[in-house]
Amino acid sequence: MKPLVLLGTGNGLERVREMLLAREPELNIVRPDDADAQQAEIALCWNPAPGSLGMYPHLRLIHSIAAGADQIFKDPSRNPQLPVCRIVDPDHRLGMVEYVLWGVLHYHRGFDQVLRNQAWVFWDRPAQRPAKQTKVGVMGLGELGRAVASQLAALDFDTRGWARRAQQIEGVSTFQAGEIKAFLSGLDILVCLLPLTTETVGILGEETFARMAAGSVVINCGRGEHLNREDLLAALDSGQLRSALLDVFEQEPLPVNDPFWRHPQICVTPHIASSASYEVIAGQILDNLARLEAGKPLANEINPEQGY
Amino acid sequence: MKPLVLLGTGNGLERVREMLLAREPELNIVRPDDADAQQAEIALCWNPAPGSLGMYPHLRLIHSIAAGADQIFKDPSRNPQLPVCRIVDPDHRLGMVEYVLWGVLHYHRGFDQVLRNQAWVFWDRPAQRPAKQTKVGVMGLGELGRAVASQLAALDFDTRGWARRAQQIEGVSTFQAGEIKAFLSGLDILVCLLPLTTETVGILGEETFARMAAGSVVINCGRGEHLNREDLLAALDSGQLRSALLDVFEQEPLPVNDPFWRHPQICVTPHIASSASYEVIAGQILDNLARLEAGKPLANEINPEQGY
Repeated sequence: MKPLVLLGTGNGLERVREMLLAREPELNIVRPDDADAQQAEIALCWNPAPGSLGMYPHLRLIHSIAAGADQIFKDPSRNPQLPVCRIVDPDHRLGMVEYVLWGVLHYHRGFDQVLRNQAWVFWDRPAQRPAKQTKVGVMGLGELGRAVASQLAALDFDTRGWARRAQQIEGVSTFQAGEIKAFLSGLDILVCLLPLTTETVGILGEETFARMAAGSVVINCGRGEHLNREDLLAALDSGQLRSALLDVFEQEPLPVNDPFWRHPQICVTPHIASSASYEVIAGQILDNLARLEAGKPLANEINPEQGY
Repeated sequence: MKPLVLLGTGNGLERVREMLLAREPELNIVRPDDADAQQAEIALCWNPAPGSLGMYPHLRLIHSIAAGADQIFKDPSRNPQLPVCRIVDPDHRLGMVEYVLWGVLHYHRGFDQVLRNQAWVFWDRPAQRPAKQTKVGVMGLGELGRAVASQLAALDFDTRGWARRAQQIEGVSTFQAGEIKAFLSGLDILVCLLPLTTETVGILGEETFARMAAGSVVINCGRGEHLNREDLLAALDSGQLRSALLDVFEQEPLPVNDPFWRHPQICVTPHIASSASYEVIAGQILDNLARLEAGKPLANEINPEQGY
């Protein structure tokens, strides 16, 4: 059997390898240093080093072990003709819904103030309003964004969604690429679930924040590069933003000397939003291997021009 | 027009009065000190002082301005023949759903640890599991409990419900009064939404905690009297409970010297779970006044034997 090569590092990749071998002991899973790595037909990766994808002349498929694949598209040595697939995991989606729901409720109900008040032994009810009076906008309406927007709408939030192309989601007001000003106008909470592309880098910046409501909140579950750090700090200083909940960073783990850690209005979480299920990842990879052998269309293939 | 008398204190009662007068300027709303208070036919109250309800010989209806009415039933001077009504507010229900959802997600996803870790500048992912592996039990399946249990089930939590009588809720395993041991067995998170009755006082105590999973969590949105304080502190000390989220207390505001304030495993919130809408409260009171005049059945009348 032709080998699969593991590219990149991290516990995740090793746990996927174990799960694959548990289900298909015959699989020949190699690492870049192994003798037959050059024969690899499939690359499995999370964060391949730039230049690594071009080193395997027999590749037929590049498979991400995660929902995102931006590290793969960043490798200039990648053969652009090769299909790139990603994982679409229902539990992953549910994990993201949980994370964003917690974040939206945290700020909508003033739990950030309540937790701070407890440290001060201060009994004070934050201003409350019904969900239908809180405007929440979700940027990015892929698998995750659609699920998040639907759930927020089901809880009666005044929910908007924004994506490159027109979409329909029950209970959600949707906007297309060119309608971003209307989408952002007066938002109380903005959730970023965009893929990272040249068009979305730095999208969480001054111009975006200025269109939102005064004292609003940003939740970033996309990529660290979506956020303009200096613009965020300025908007928190001016009061245009009240808080930011950040799960993703340009460098992870977030370095200990990063000022985000100690900023009283920034909540840092360690990239926990989407909890991947290794069972599902292994299952979808095995399914795509079988599809590749049988010449059938691959599942969850990424459109390389869009990057998702 | 026969007067309505306002019994008890608090901003809430005054805001209800303003809202009622805004909609029905002709209403004769008096306070206990007013000259014609003795003629009152309707008492509006939140926390009437014991002995006060017996002072109005012409009463035909006692109306709580809240979802609960236990203070009313605590007054031994109350004529037990009088109907007692309460408020059932859809926004109130939604507010409770939001609060409990935040609390369940907070502990299910380890946000309590993540927030603590940020103070220590410590990047560490808490153990994660899918919602279907977290057992959440809701005690009390009235208006609020049913809505909470349904929403938890919709998010895929392994959801149980417990009430005096058999109930059916889609996606929820329900238990009756005598089945409390099976209901509690191995619960990861217990949510109390019970009415306060002689049977439920102190129900959050050692015997209950011991049946739950080791390291589990209690969320109390019922009444302070549901909780046995000493048993809670002992269970937190022993590790049988990991945390408690408390929104209600025997004395509110919680006194500044109460050890709950400074306990690292207790989260104190200032009775914010259900956000009442004054528009709805006033509307339901006016509706019941009209029903009383017309001799029609009252809405949201409390069964005095059950206390809810």
